[in-house]
Amino acid sequence: MEIIEQVTPMQIRAEELRMAGQTIALVPTMGFFHEGHLELMRVGKKHGDVVIFSIFVNPLQFGPSEDYACYPRDLEGDLAKAEKAGADIAFLPSGREMYPEGFQTKINVKNVTQPLCGLSRPGHFDGVTTVVAKLFHITKPHLALFGQKDYQQLTVISRMVKDLNMDIQIVGVPTVREADGLAMSSRNSYLNAAERRSALCLKKALDLAEELVQSGEKEAGKIRAGMTSLIEHTAHAKIDYIQICNPITLEDKEFVEDEALIALAVKVGKTRLIDNRIINKRKWS
Amino acid sequence: MEIIEQVTPMQIRAEELRMAGQTIALVPTMGFFHEGHLELMRVGKKHGDVVIFSIFVNPLQFGPSEDYACYPRDLEGDLAKAEKAGADIAFLPSGREMYPEGFQTKINVKNVTQPLCGLSRPGHFDGVTTVVAKLFHITKPHLALFGQKDYQQLTVISRMVKDLNMDIQIVGVPTVREADGLAMSSRNSYLNAAERRSALCLKKALDLAEELVQSGEKEAGKIRAGMTSLIEHTAHAKIDYIQICNPITLEDKEFVEDEALIALAVKVGKTRLIDNRIINKRKWS
Repeated sequence: MEIIEQVTPMQIRAEELRMAGQTIALVPTMGFFHEGHLELMRVGKKHGDVVIFSIFVNPLQFGPSEDYACYPRDLEGDLAKAEKAGADIAFLPSGREMYPEGFQTKINVKNVTQPLCGLSRPGHFDGVTTVVAKLFHITKPHLALFGQKDYQQLTVISRMVKDLNMDIQIVGVPTVREADGLAMSSRNSYLNAAERRSALCLKKALDLAEELVQSGEKEAGKIRAGMTSLIEHTAHAKIDYIQICNPITLEDKEFVEDEALIALAVKVGKTRLIDNRIINKRKWS
Repeated sequence: MEIIEQVTPMQIRAEELRMAGQTIALVPTMGFFHEGHLELMRVGKKHGDVVIFSIFVNPLQFGPSEDYACYPRDLEGDLAKAEKAGADIAFLPSGREMYPEGFQTKINVKNVTQPLCGLSRPGHFDGVTTVVAKLFHITKPHLALFGQKDYQQLTVISRMVKDLNMDIQIVGVPTVREADGLAMSSRNSYLNAAERRSALCLKKALDLAEELVQSGEKEAGKIRAGMTSLIEHTAHAKIDYIQICNPITLEDKEFVEDEALIALAVKVGKTRLIDNRIINKRKWS
């Protein structure tokens, strides 16, 4: 597996691959790999000839009171896992390489960044779109893979790609879960044993919502009330948001009649976890 | 000369050219060509194999009280002139093609957009960077050419390209002038005969500034005062700004000791004109 740490050599290598007719799949990450990340690489390998992954804990997308400084890292473990998953090139830039002195540009996607995580993480998505655009220009992918666990991130990036006419196919990959259903996340490593048990409330609340819909409930308010009650009765858990919305525009829905996104963020102890589910999923024939 | 009006065919054609090893030079314009535009195409042809130019009067970069609706247009004349100048492909998108329903993304370059034209045209440069990024992603150029007359625009775009790691060489082409020294601009067509004579005050003020510097004056305030006086004594002319600043950061300079940008905007009648000059230009050995 190749390791590249600087922008210019990465661009030269990417251009060389493109000119040789190779299809490049990019998996942008913040490292500390779990099966979710590795699945992105495996799916990337199916669609592309060369899988490039990046590890960069992006300061721009963390708020001042968030976990940038203590975000978990394990470079050696990550490289071994990625190689096993079939990745070809690791792009590992430093902060200085990504944001040299004088840096002053941001990309803002206006509407879909507002609700959900946008409410409690102001500026977060500007940081995400800016770094992802940079990574796209550096690694020149034909396609890029993102996990559906970060559903809003996937929506925001898809919107940016469309609006700025980036010629890149964005692939959303289904969330990989632990045996009991907890969505995999690098932040799960923060949980102690009691919190780990409580963390399952996100998945349980989504199960409950789906059951309510299947039993005929259409009022978003009532579905949300059920989910709220379930989480409020879970030890260590504090709701950040529960939203039921249009899966493209992320605008709130009052009634769940066709396809809808149910998304939630819950603080379990000090750890903020997210999960989501699309219900009434359209069947594409 | 090829004419392409839609995004996808343009991207396919550009990718095809790149894969065939052709170097693409892009000249983004708002049309109504004068020698300045044609010079960009000629310089593009020197550096690249294929010159693509775009004509798009970008609503995003006009303020509500500006001249978007009456911006001069002459498509037929433009195409004939561009062909003669050696251009290969005209990209002529509609507003709907560039900004379809749901569009919501903007690129902001923070510091260098603030002074000069940024003061009297809020939001202008967000419109410029956003449309230029779109054109870059659509036409996939190796290099792109911009006139030095719009010096701040050139600075802002260079900054965006650097900050977002776009793998594109930005080439600034010296301002083309009328016989008497007026910088060529599509907006000169708005001037009546008396205003046309007054319009020369921009060039004269820059000449005066350069003379003052050559005679030993170093205080930016005094240089500005001389320029101000000259323009205030010109009929129909009203100063928007005169700034003396660092040519990279565009931060004001109090003293002109090394390389400096002198830039000004003047309303002549209802027409806003700009011009600039770099003084004490560094010699690169």
